[in-house]
Amino acid sequence: MQFLSDNAAPVHPRLWEAMRAADAPDTPYDTDALSRELDARFTALFGRECAALWVATGTAANCLALATMVDPHGGVVCHEEAHIEMDECGAPGFYLHGAKLLLAPGAGAKLSAEAIGEVLAGITRGVHQVPAQAISITQASEYGMVYRPDELAAIGALAKDHGLGLHMDGARFGNACAFLDAAPAEVARPVDALSFGFVKNGGMGAEAVILFDTEKAEMIRYRRKRAGHLQSKGRYLAAQILAMLDDDLWLENARAANAAAAEIAVAAGDRLLYPAEANELFVAVNAEERAALRAQGFAFYDWDEACVRLVTSWATDPAHAQALGKAIAAL
Amino acid sequence: MQFLSDNAAPVHPRLWEAMRAADAPDTPYDTDALSRELDARFTALFGRECAALWVATGTAANCLALATMVDPHGGVVCHEEAHIEMDECGAPGFYLHGAKLLLAPGAGAKLSAEAIGEVLAGITRGVHQVPAQAISITQASEYGMVYRPDELAAIGALAKDHGLGLHMDGARFGNACAFLDAAPAEVARPVDALSFGFVKNGGMGAEAVILFDTEKAEMIRYRRKRAGHLQSKGRYLAAQILAMLDDDLWLENARAANAAAAEIAVAAGDRLLYPAEANELFVAVNAEERAALRAQGFAFYDWDEACVRLVTSWATDPAHAQALGKAIAAL
Amino acid sequence: MQFLSDNAAPVHPRLWEAMRAADAPDTPYDTDALSRELDARFTALFGRECAALWVATGTAANCLALATMVDPHGGVVCHEEAHIEMDECGAPGFYLHGAKLLLAPGAGAKLSAEAIGEVLAGITRGVHQVPAQAISITQASEYGMVYRPDELAAIGALAKDHGLGLHMDGARFGNACAFLDAAPAEVARPVDALSFGFVKNGGMGAEAVILFDTEKAEMIRYRRKRAGHLQSKGRYLAAQILAMLDDDLWLENARAANAAAAEIAVAAGDRLLYPAEANELFVAVNAEERAALRAQGFAFYDWDEACVRLVTSWATDPAHAQALGKAIAAL
Amino acid sequence: MQFLSDNAAPVHPRLWEAMRAADAPDTPYDTDALSRELDARFTALFGRECAALWVATGTAANCLALATMVDPHGGVVCHEEAHIEMDECGAPGFYLHGAKLLLAPGAGAKLSAEAIGEVLAGITRGVHQVPAQAISITQASEYGMVYRPDELAAIGALAKDHGLGLHMDGARFGNACAFLDAAPAEVARPVDALSFGFVKNGGMGAEAVILFDTEKAEMIRYRRKRAGHLQSKGRYLAAQILAMLDDDLWLENARAANAAAAEIAVAAGDRLLYPAEANELFVAVNAEERAALRAQGFAFYDWDEACVRLVTSWATDPAHAQALGKAIAAL
Repeated sequence: MQFLSDNAAPVHPRLWEAMRAADAPDTPYDTDALSRELDARFTALFGRECAALWVATGTAANCLALATMVDPHGGVVCHEEAHIEMDECGAPGFYLHGAKLLLAPGAGAKLSAEAIGEVLAGITRGVHQVPAQAISITQASEYGMVYRPDELAAIGALAKDHGLGLHMDGARFGNACAFLDAAPAEVARPVDALSFGFVKNGGMGAEAVILFDTEKAEMIRYRRKRAGHLQSKGRYLAAQILAMLDDDLWLENARAANAAAAEIAVAAGDRLLYPAEANELFVAVNAEERAALRAQGFAFYDWDEACVRLVTSWATDPAHAQALGKAIAAL
Repeated sequence: MQFLSDNAAPVHPRLWEAMRAADAPDTPYDTDALSRELDARFTALFGRECAALWVATGTAANCLALATMVDPHGGVVCHEEAHIEMDECGAPGFYLHGAKLLLAPGAGAKLSAEAIGEVLAGITRGVHQVPAQAISITQASEYGMVYRPDELAAIGALAKDHGLGLHMDGARFGNACAFLDAAPAEVARPVDALSFGFVKNGGMGAEAVILFDTEKAEMIRYRRKRAGHLQSKGRYLAAQILAMLDDDLWLENARAANAAAAEIAVAAGDRLLYPAEANELFVAVNAEERAALRAQGFAFYDWDEACVRLVTSWATDPAHAQALGKAIAAL
Repeated sequence: MQFLSDNAAPVHPRLWEAMRAADAPDTPYDTDALSRELDARFTALFGRECAALWVATGTAANCLALATMVDPHGGVVCHEEAHIEMDECGAPGFYLHGAKLLLAPGAGAKLSAEAIGEVLAGITRGVHQVPAQAISITQASEYGMVYRPDELAAIGALAKDHGLGLHMDGARFGNACAFLDAAPAEVARPVDALSFGFVKNGGMGAEAVILFDTEKAEMIRYRRKRAGHLQSKGRYLAAQILAMLDDDLWLENARAANAAAAEIAVAAGDRLLYPAEANELFVAVNAEERAALRAQGFAFYDWDEACVRLVTSWATDPAHAQALGKAIAAL
Repeated sequence: MQFLSDNAAPVHPRLWEAMRAADAPDTPYDTDALSRELDARFTALFGRECAALWVATGTAANCLALATMVDPHGGVVCHEEAHIEMDECGAPGFYLHGAKLLLAPGAGAKLSAEAIGEVLAGITRGVHQVPAQAISITQASEYGMVYRPDELAAIGALAKDHGLGLHMDGARFGNACAFLDAAPAEVARPVDALSFGFVKNGGMGAEAVILFDTEKAEMIRYRRKRAGHLQSKGRYLAAQILAMLDDDLWLENARAANAAAAEIAVAAGDRLLYPAEANELFVAVNAEERAALRAQGFAFYDWDEACVRLVTSWATDPAHAQALGKAIAAL
């Protein structure tokens, strides 16, 4: 029973079908019929014009999105535990040519407008200091917490006031929409660029970079090629994403994952370090208890000495989630 | 009848099977069982120790391979029509942090030891000039021509004499091996790093970077992550590559593509601008003739005013190749 | 008798005086009174608004100027023997984060609008190819030749038509103005950014980057700092440049250097490989003749097997120039 | 009476003399007689073989030194208030191609082996995280505090144990040597590369990068050129540095600056936020008091709401220091 990562889940059957259907020869790179459909499909989904590009990973999506906002001498305000800071091996430094991440604190790996404002207030020394040019937030956050619309609006207003771009790392954007029961248009309202994640949500190897500033689309297409991310058989990536959008499969999958997490969360009760809002749980269990859970067949990741991380996915068997909940309650 | 690009061909059925089989959950990134098999499998294939990493594209493979050899202030000797110079939107400049491509001429987009030697002889002005640190050759070349073992040996000796790394862009390495009827070990003998291409040869989105200098493997794993090329569901890429290696599918596919090209080549006769050695043909046909061929249902790429490019693949229907040959002969 | 390089000449006495005068304490970096004078002084000189920054070298000046025009994924059309291509150890690749130099031929290291146009006409393959974003020309050229106003106008019109920035490497801008007997405003008319050289013309270690697009000044001030070129005692660099501008010392010095070169040129006659327009001469003398000249006390640089390079400076003793002319005539 | 910055001080008369003496023509760049003397002179000073290169700024010195130790995908452990983190506009990100600064805390902007060890202990997640490759410390620190030999030894041992390079930002290295009354060999004993500052200590625009790993000298010479820091009239930089070394002028100047600071420090007493060890003082005075001091003719920098920064230099008039001390005492 696997709660290690949503990355370990299989590919959704409807994506397999869509990929097989893409086997018919078409023109290479992103000139095929499927890839050419993306802009319109996401424009419809978000209710405002956008450009959409497939890439293979969330890291590439984040970095390319940020490259539309940040000069090599600029900076990006982000949480001190953001994925771009902690888990991407310095990828933003590579893609942004040495631009700096300007770190802010915040509970549950969420930024507040206030915390961002404090970082900005410290930038006073002209050319001796890296100027902020963008803000990046993660929705849902690295601890599975979800920004509410008013929080997003406050951060969006701050970005606008300071002339900063606003990027959303949406590796688990679907889980956030599912939790908020809100339309993607609402959840991404103040955002200039979104990394819309599908791989953790039933995909194989396709994420979408969504640019609401469509004037940046041309440059980012060059940057994608230059980064070796313009796959020649791009139609298989487009097929995955389109299948995800069909009948809101992305939302259905995210709901399933959230539901499985919620079931465990209820059972975990006070052991939860953060409220269960998406599909990641951080649960205080000690070494002995971890061993006991593993002995019962549960696989998960030791986050640190204080807690373990449990991740559910679209494919989590509800019975497994139930079983894990019971096992934790019984500790 | 499609001769536009080997990128337009479908994915081979055995790769589909292998990818489906990889659906069983496993650990993420490259820690799964399939990814961990790669080093041993390629070591067996090449008869010498190597490290093997999957990436999604040939551009990423080339650039990561070169990053093991070239400092940001260094240079790579390559052909003036090499893919890394002409077709990758400056990706080497990005991955190598501004390192320079040092261009040499040569018929059929092949380099000779002599032409490389002339570039090296011109580097005499100390720190004012970029020092050469590597040589990159393409096997088969951008015009579908194949380096013979003695040519490779001469270039390898030159590289060794000058302390330079030797990289082989093997986007069509299989086609070269098939043409030479030689073991991959022989075709890659003097090489330090190889981009072993599978996408054009029946794959979906997986190429292999092969490092014969295994001490460089660690750093290149960091660089892959940093470039956003460490896919979280890497097992699907590993599955493709392993299926290609099983029973030498890669060689079988390459032979099929070469055979189709050869059939057309015989019919094209003197119209061929380069000898037909792999699966690309450059054929002199004028505008009127192009129209006539297209009217008969043949799709291909206008290379320039002098010629068209015809590319066959593992999936080319022999009847289509025969038909195209006849059509060209009848012009 | 020294004709090796204008870099070897001493610092002009009036610059020494100006630097000594700057010894009075002032605020650091570029906040001192002298540095703050630069914008206005160059605006007056060029008759249009510009921003002016000191840097220590022509390489830094060129690269910072180009950074106002070229994205990391972009390209700069320049001559295949331009200093930025041949002599700066890949500095543009460093400062422009891997942007590409797109090379064009041309007699005497001068570009024509036609040659540039041919490079641009070859950029047709979308994201697979680096897009041109700027043109860089050298005035006077690497072979001491000077662009005429009509040539500059044609290149400027081409740049405008294609939406490209136009940069002028003016390491010997003074020599060009002196030769043309034209106002700097005229010589730099179509240019967006100029590297205005002073070091070869009697300076110690200060060149000026002139930006006619003043909106770019802010970003380039950050880039200068980031490149380690914002010297804390910048007032000594500003002092050099201001002294050069006072009473047109830069022009007086350039005229002296040109006059010395002209004197030698007349004597060299048919041996000249390029017309003598500035202060560099390329003179066909064989090995025996070189030895003979050196035996008479003349120091110079062997350019290649065909010719030597003779460079005069503001400090060249007219008697030395006369002597060298006679010596060459007597060969 | 100027206590704003040691950067505001004039150039020492003996450096003026040395620069004037360098006016005699010599070969350009770093091929002149003075530049060629540097390696031997610093080897003598430090009692072990080293390579020494002039550059114009401390930022360039720091970044070039670090480039000998850190890959683009690597990291540098430094203090969270280190100059390279706070004051160089992201220059390390530029020069190191996106490498990351890994921040550690410490009183007085000094790192301890323990604090560094904690950063290293947190690097456990393989390729997802930037690996540490170097440590950078500032001697004297950004708050004017000096590492003692045993502290240096502990950090050196840690670096060695972890295979990390050790860099010392010695913008005020002279002040540290003066305070410790120790030979430079001792103060730099565990260090692999040192930025030896002269500009704040009576120079005009020349710092020295000292590489004790002389095998790295060749690459760093290329990098200096590539960064536009190889000045063509380098002899004037070499002249400054050699004049500083003659008769230990650097030490004499540093002692004078320290003595002036010490005089003020005694008077400031409990208002000092950090012990006065070098030539920088951080003194708690409120807004009213600041106004009072300024009204008496003292110029200084408002560090933050809590304190002002007072910096003395080689040129600080002892009477001015005495006056400032009295004025503070009288507040």
